[in-house]
Amino acid sequence: MKSSTRGQELTQSPIRSLIPFARKAKENGIEILHLNIGQPDIPTPEAALDRVRSLHDEVIRYGASEGMLSLRKRVCQYYSKFDIDIDTSDIMVTTGASEAIQFSLFSCFDPGDQIILPEPFYANYLGYTQMSGIQIVPVTSTLDEQFELPSTEAFYNCITERTKGIFLCNPGNPTGKLYSRESLIRLAKLVKEENLFLIVDEVYREFCYDGDFYSVLNIESIRDNVIVIDSISKVFSSCGARIGYVATRNKTLKNSMLRYAQLRLCPPHFGQILAEACYDACDEYLPDVKKEYNERRLYLYDRLSNMPGVKTYLPPAAFYNVVELPIDDAEIFCKWMLTEFQLDGKTVMMSPCDGFYINTSLGKKQVRIAYVLEKDKLSLAMDCLEAGLVAYNKVHQLAQSGQANA
Amino acid sequence: MKSSTRGQELTQSPIRSLIPFARKAKENGIEILHLNIGQPDIPTPEAALDRVRSLHDEVIRYGASEGMLSLRKRVCQYYSKFDIDIDTSDIMVTTGASEAIQFSLFSCFDPGDQIILPEPFYANYLGYTQMSGIQIVPVTSTLDEQFELPSTEAFYNCITERTKGIFLCNPGNPTGKLYSRESLIRLAKLVKEENLFLIVDEVYREFCYDGDFYSVLNIESIRDNVIVIDSISKVFSSCGARIGYVATRNKTLKNSMLRYAQLRLCPPHFGQILAEACYDACDEYLPDVKKEYNERRLYLYDRLSNMPGVKTYLPPAAFYNVVELPIDDAEIFCKWMLTEFQLDGKTVMMSPCDGFYINTSLGKKQVRIAYVLEKDKLSLAMDCLEAGLVAYNKVHQLAQSGQANA
Repeated sequence: MKSSTRGQELTQSPIRSLIPFARKAKENGIEILHLNIGQPDIPTPEAALDRVRSLHDEVIRYGASEGMLSLRKRVCQYYSKFDIDIDTSDIMVTTGASEAIQFSLFSCFDPGDQIILPEPFYANYLGYTQMSGIQIVPVTSTLDEQFELPSTEAFYNCITERTKGIFLCNPGNPTGKLYSRESLIRLAKLVKEENLFLIVDEVYREFCYDGDFYSVLNIESIRDNVIVIDSISKVFSSCGARIGYVATRNKTLKNSMLRYAQLRLCPPHFGQILAEACYDACDEYLPDVKKEYNERRLYLYDRLSNMPGVKTYLPPAAFYNVVELPIDDAEIFCKWMLTEFQLDGKTVMMSPCDGFYINTSLGKKQVRIAYVLEKDKLSLAMDCLEAGLVAYNKVHQLAQSGQANA
Repeated sequence: MKSSTRGQELTQSPIRSLIPFARKAKENGIEILHLNIGQPDIPTPEAALDRVRSLHDEVIRYGASEGMLSLRKRVCQYYSKFDIDIDTSDIMVTTGASEAIQFSLFSCFDPGDQIILPEPFYANYLGYTQMSGIQIVPVTSTLDEQFELPSTEAFYNCITERTKGIFLCNPGNPTGKLYSRESLIRLAKLVKEENLFLIVDEVYREFCYDGDFYSVLNIESIRDNVIVIDSISKVFSSCGARIGYVATRNKTLKNSMLRYAQLRLCPPHFGQILAEACYDACDEYLPDVKKEYNERRLYLYDRLSNMPGVKTYLPPAAFYNVVELPIDDAEIFCKWMLTEFQLDGKTVMMSPCDGFYINTSLGKKQVRIAYVLEKDKLSLAMDCLEAGLVAYNKVHQLAQSGQANA
């Protein structure tokens, strides 16, 4: 018996290969400052945790496949904050945004279909398209253009007879980009004309520092084309609860998604309890969280801007930044930082960006930094990066001149 | 934009079509006695719920993709009860048994591969094989033979060059069957000779009343062929927690499964806390649960055996029974029970069995009864079924003689 080809070929997360080196560094007593994963460090709303602590269920039963009605009502109410007019029947609770992505891809597309996706993109999209047999056609966005949504023409040029949808992440992971209302409405015209699905992952919607968030659920002309992915993971620091949503007004699509939802029976009960309470705590909780991330963002930008040879931009949203480093290969550099470098017993772990691109060479010199550490630690992490770059390039140049001499 | 063909064609649960009629009956003030779903009514271990209530996490973080180490250790310890010698690295925590099935199918098989599955089987297996593009080749087991594991020859006759595995449910849903050690070892020879994967769903392992449970993880000769699906849902009345497991010692397979696991990040945090505490409460909790189900089982068998024209057997395990009724079409009868029948304001809801077969006609006269109601209610449910059968056949015969006279 031979295990499946698809399983063995499924692309792994780009940071996966660094984990053994991080473990070894820890074993050697090095403190690792983790800027490599999108795991918020900010406490989950205490009131929401209290709700879970005070649960009085006698039997932890199967819930509705589409999620608790009270939670779906609460999500609709929350969406009205963004002027989104949506019905409880348009919201399905999923086991994290991951499952929302899975349900969306399986319900919209058949094997062999193509979707257009701006790169760099969240690496797990690639895994889910592989799992569902869909092909990604990348359209490139660049740091030089501050990861602006590619032009309608650029999207248009990617369209083939197999194209069935466009997939965006807004605000962007790994880019920290926020797409403007205008650019989304511009893209909507193409979506409408070409009769495509438009799937948008909006899980960072609450973290917009420069400019206002605009949801594609607001674009009336493409009501039936739009699918939005959402989650409490990032907004409420609740990644482990595994609660996400998929929102669509498309009836046929909802029907298909419900079939997939019924197959896995229901989303997690405790997580749903937590989620509902998170939205209740929303107004009190979120302003401070946003303020904290914004301070880190500005601090990070300031530090990075002052490092020689480092190219970056001030990301308007989310809690990520893509940074181009004065090195040849970010994966080798990130590994070197874990295996060969320390500054006062500390080092920093980052995500090499090649895994966020289909054209992996575009991310060769880039890393993604997630500012999920408090400012004191972020400061130490930047000290490490700055000193690490100097040390690495010294070693690297010596090696090169040694090679030149040899 | 047209939603996917695979999504629209995904087979739905066999009881799905009855739900609107059940809702309507409730609206009309009828009390419905639910024997239709495998949702245990017995309380979740109180000590396990207390563990969740006393959690002190500040941030609900992503956990390990393979599940909490402490939980996996606890599961290994629990497995030693069944003389299963297994390592923590062989256990992966999943979001319910559903996800364990999904990971197993995607990791073992490629689209177009065939698996042999005794029918009747748990209906969701069909959905997951469709989702993963695998073909089920059914081998029939029958009520007349007490749903005995089909002969090696019967399995052998199903093998083609595309056959890559055998999938069993033991103890059986919907059959309540328990496969003997001998029959499993007999099948293992075929598995070994033909180099197949053997996936066994053992989620009802704790509920064996006649005979001892024997896990395929105990068969040394097929160590690398075996994948076991497990879950806390049924054993600990914790369906909503969404915690399952997949256990395999096959390294290549574990590697593939981990890729799928990483893609969805991690299993639910709170559920894992509950699960660990469930195993701690195991010895105190399970004997009473088993005693309760056994009493219901015997009562149910006694009642069914005394109904004219009803064919059944005493199921040795799980909490289901497949019952053949003296009617032509179980789906029509089950619907009739919800729309046309009541006994003192009550009626009973059951699962028609056609959805548990690939050869749907085999289940035409059969229903699955889940004994997940306390004895008083079970008694009322049997009163309804008994009276319902008489009434239905009276109406039916009148209609037929009416037709004959016409």
